[in-house]
Amino acid sequence: MQLIKKNSSKIKVMALGGLGEIGKNMTVIEYKDEIIVIDAGLSFPEDEMLGVDIVIPDIAYLIKNKDKVKGIFITHGHEDHIGALPYVLKKMDVPVYGSRLTVGLINVKLKEHKLNNVKIQTVNPREVIDVGQMQVEFIKNNHSIPDACSIAVHTDQGIIYHTGDFKVDFTPMDGDVMDLHRISELGEEGVLLMLADSTNVEKPGFTMSEKTVGVGLDDIFTKSNGNRIIVATFASNIHRLQQIINTAEKFGRKVAMSGRSMLNVYAVAKELSTDEFKYIDVNEDTMIELNDISKYDDSELVIITTGSQGEPMSALARMAFSEHKKVVIKEGDLVIMSAHPIPGNEKLINKVINLLLEKGADVVHSDIADIHVSGHACQEEIKLIHRLAKPKYFMPAHGEYRMLKKHAQLASELGMSEDNIFIMQTGDILEINKTTAHVTGKVQTGNVLVDGLGVGDVGNIVLRDRKHLSEDGLMIVVVTISRAEGKVLAGPDIISRGFVYVRESEDLIDGAKETVKKVLCDCEEKNIKEWAYLKNNIKEELKEYLYHRTKRNPMILPIIMEV
Amino acid sequence: MQLIKKNSSKIKVMALGGLGEIGKNMTVIEYKDEIIVIDAGLSFPEDEMLGVDIVIPDIAYLIKNKDKVKGIFITHGHEDHIGALPYVLKKMDVPVYGSRLTVGLINVKLKEHKLNNVKIQTVNPREVIDVGQMQVEFIKNNHSIPDACSIAVHTDQGIIYHTGDFKVDFTPMDGDVMDLHRISELGEEGVLLMLADSTNVEKPGFTMSEKTVGVGLDDIFTKSNGNRIIVATFASNIHRLQQIINTAEKFGRKVAMSGRSMLNVYAVAKELSTDEFKYIDVNEDTMIELNDISKYDDSELVIITTGSQGEPMSALARMAFSEHKKVVIKEGDLVIMSAHPIPGNEKLINKVINLLLEKGADVVHSDIADIHVSGHACQEEIKLIHRLAKPKYFMPAHGEYRMLKKHAQLASELGMSEDNIFIMQTGDILEINKTTAHVTGKVQTGNVLVDGLGVGDVGNIVLRDRKHLSEDGLMIVVVTISRAEGKVLAGPDIISRGFVYVRESEDLIDGAKETVKKVLCDCEEKNIKEWAYLKNNIKEELKEYLYHRTKRNPMILPIIMEV
Repeated sequence: MQLIKKNSSKIKVMALGGLGEIGKNMTVIEYKDEIIVIDAGLSFPEDEMLGVDIVIPDIAYLIKNKDKVKGIFITHGHEDHIGALPYVLKKMDVPVYGSRLTVGLINVKLKEHKLNNVKIQTVNPREVIDVGQMQVEFIKNNHSIPDACSIAVHTDQGIIYHTGDFKVDFTPMDGDVMDLHRISELGEEGVLLMLADSTNVEKPGFTMSEKTVGVGLDDIFTKSNGNRIIVATFASNIHRLQQIINTAEKFGRKVAMSGRSMLNVYAVAKELSTDEFKYIDVNEDTMIELNDISKYDDSELVIITTGSQGEPMSALARMAFSEHKKVVIKEGDLVIMSAHPIPGNEKLINKVINLLLEKGADVVHSDIADIHVSGHACQEEIKLIHRLAKPKYFMPAHGEYRMLKKHAQLASELGMSEDNIFIMQTGDILEINKTTAHVTGKVQTGNVLVDGLGVGDVGNIVLRDRKHLSEDGLMIVVVTISRAEGKVLAGPDIISRGFVYVRESEDLIDGAKETVKKVLCDCEEKNIKEWAYLKNNIKEELKEYLYHRTKRNPMILPIIMEV
Repeated sequence: MQLIKKNSSKIKVMALGGLGEIGKNMTVIEYKDEIIVIDAGLSFPEDEMLGVDIVIPDIAYLIKNKDKVKGIFITHGHEDHIGALPYVLKKMDVPVYGSRLTVGLINVKLKEHKLNNVKIQTVNPREVIDVGQMQVEFIKNNHSIPDACSIAVHTDQGIIYHTGDFKVDFTPMDGDVMDLHRISELGEEGVLLMLADSTNVEKPGFTMSEKTVGVGLDDIFTKSNGNRIIVATFASNIHRLQQIINTAEKFGRKVAMSGRSMLNVYAVAKELSTDEFKYIDVNEDTMIELNDISKYDDSELVIITTGSQGEPMSALARMAFSEHKKVVIKEGDLVIMSAHPIPGNEKLINKVINLLLEKGADVVHSDIADIHVSGHACQEEIKLIHRLAKPKYFMPAHGEYRMLKKHAQLASELGMSEDNIFIMQTGDILEINKTTAHVTGKVQTGNVLVDGLGVGDVGNIVLRDRKHLSEDGLMIVVVTISRAEGKVLAGPDIISRGFVYVRESEDLIDGAKETVKKVLCDCEEKNIKEWAYLKNNIKEELKEYLYHRTKRNPMILPIIMEV
């Protein structure tokens, strides 16, 4: 698959994840025997990846070129950008760079994985890390998590600018607008290649400022009639937490938090806050323990919780299913879903909303009130960045194919030649220098499935079996046969799981036994002792019998014990 | 659970499905030892109902009162209203009533189930069926299938009006607006209780007319640049098929169809068409066989297909996955998704769209063009029906809890007393007469899962096992032991499926074997011959070992063969 021509003056740019998919973001830039990696994210399993916990990129290419890798540069602290980092760092010893909060969140992750000796360095916006042939500059972005950055890679061939995840917020919570001045300068200097976030490229207009959510929250709190307020949102959206806390303080309410991931993020944000700069700014006595909510009147309470996506094990879902130990939903509770459904989560969210309503709560969601904004740029913001950076070449990043294609169209509408736009797949190598850019080959890539401690040991065969088992269950047939005479000494015994309710299907199971006995008799008569042949016959006959009786195809496992 | 007071002058109204859920619609009205049933629908399995094909209502109550059941009255031919009918008719011999097309579609279903002796009667709008104490009147509705009706049940206590699924289309395809005149008359006569469709009650405004879709289609066809056009829509939406055909004819294109269910519906619509009334009206030479599409130029072709919801086995999905035998998607193909995603199908649809785009097709969906309208009434239409029927009592029907609740609020905003509004659950009995209405008890209800030929044999235990198997697979341990001495004669053999990739996990499997051997030795030493005890020990030890090594919990099945 390696079609790469040796040409030391060309830069190779490739994604090991994040193209043609949402999540698993990882971009590789290679120049003159040096490699830098931008982000190391995970994605969540597709429906057909049964039992899988998370998905990480296949980094075979990096492992093979381990010695070249000079650093991993992380744009921000979301899972789809940092989630694969521990797995990568278990395979190679590479320094990691990120902004302050990003490093704080990475450290939590490294601790969980007991990775103690990682070289990790905090970088400020506009700071440049020199790795040799490339100088890597962090540039301030706006996004749904503080300290998000884009990255400019300076080389003697020109600048490669990767937007990372971004939006342009003219009234951001932390006061600092995305560094349009620096991007504008880069544009003047000359951006050779831009890679840009395509998540919201299908949406016209401009993403609203995070601050508009504060207004929406104020409005709902005003109408809350002294009821308890529960707000669900993304654990890592610290600006959102800040706004909920601000509104709570304005209305004289205390704030308790539920959900492990949110408590983790909050702790990091508090710990990193200084007198000069606070990631989270809260009055001494606002925050209370979830254990203490019974000490307060409903009108004095706000509970911030995880579960805005209806995740079955989240705090909000446990409240809805009456499984939360500390929060019992009651008549009048006002639940605010401060999030949009991520495609695929609609049914889960719907179930949670229905259960909350059935318990007498009121539910306000983003369809009916302005209580959420996206962290990603819509078309007009994307156009702005294109205009400022005015790159020579462009590669849409971060998105499913439909988004990449739309982003390419948008670039083309801005006047870019289609020859200079590269809709790439994960693994495609773009070779580029001052004057030309071509896709020249492909490196190995793919999904590595993580299930428990296993990384990559769940492959297609295991998944196919899980699917088969999930649909029709299984039937096990065990027989003990004497090696000497080929006579059946015990069995056939039949055990089934996930197939039919056995107690009410005795007749069916008896029939299955008879079917197997017939096969055994035939083989005994013919003096057949090839167990593989026997097993296959049992399988075929039983399959036919069971399908005829039930129109189902359980997995059939014949086991022969030789004595 | 039967808390019903005997009171022969009260009418009992209950739903055996359709409340607090989408689908599985079935309403029972019982008066003076006579029962009528409105609709017998199915629903599609929830994500956790692994391997289940369809879900039908538990009709234990009807079976117990078989002799009272005078008829099943079907409002229209959608699966969520007729899909359970064959299963009900296998349990009881009851006449079925429906409008012309509805009966046509039911007959297809009965044939598939080899039900030949069903008494089935075609009823025209405003026609009344007298079953004794109740007179059942069919009233014309607008909906996303022709011949949809609402039902008015006349009794000496008053009228019970069930809207069925409806919208109000002032410019419907068949020319006949929902029979507002008759509903208005009923309102004047006095509607005692109304049950009304809540599907779109959360949506403000008025659902657009089906005819607006024709305009949207014309618009896209105009811009099609002579490319082949593929339109995906719901199989049973005959008005939509008609509009696509109309537009095709207008632009001089032939029409081929792909998808079994659509071909079935089309055949019924053709068969029932007469010179006076055509369900589908098409020029002699417009329709062509799918086999013949290669004989025409792309600019002369329209293919109408199933799969607008991304269903994996549908024709459109097979085209997208390059698995369709007759249609190969190519550069320039224009695919029109003439449908909205039903919640839960977003990811499937998205996958299909991405694949089509990757193959070079253009995809137009309802987010970016006016090519779909709902078949259900929005708030203003719902209010219109409330105002016309002006019922004394009201029960929101057809919808999840959030919709039923919203519908109750809407009725209340229209001035109805909250005491007269009943948000009910499936199974709740509303007892009602001229002057009072109360929920007085509950009958047995629930989900009956259909898997292959099995109706109701997949219960919680089977589903729990399927879930367990789907997440972590299984490990089987087999040992043959001599009855006399308790000695191990063969094994332990270990077989696993869906757990780990065995060839790369030999070490793990060896460790598992050692773990089992240790348990066997211990038991042999202690002379333990209680196999249940032994099996349990194997299970526990193995579970701990495997979890420690993999952080996974496969199903463990120890099997002991006694010789």
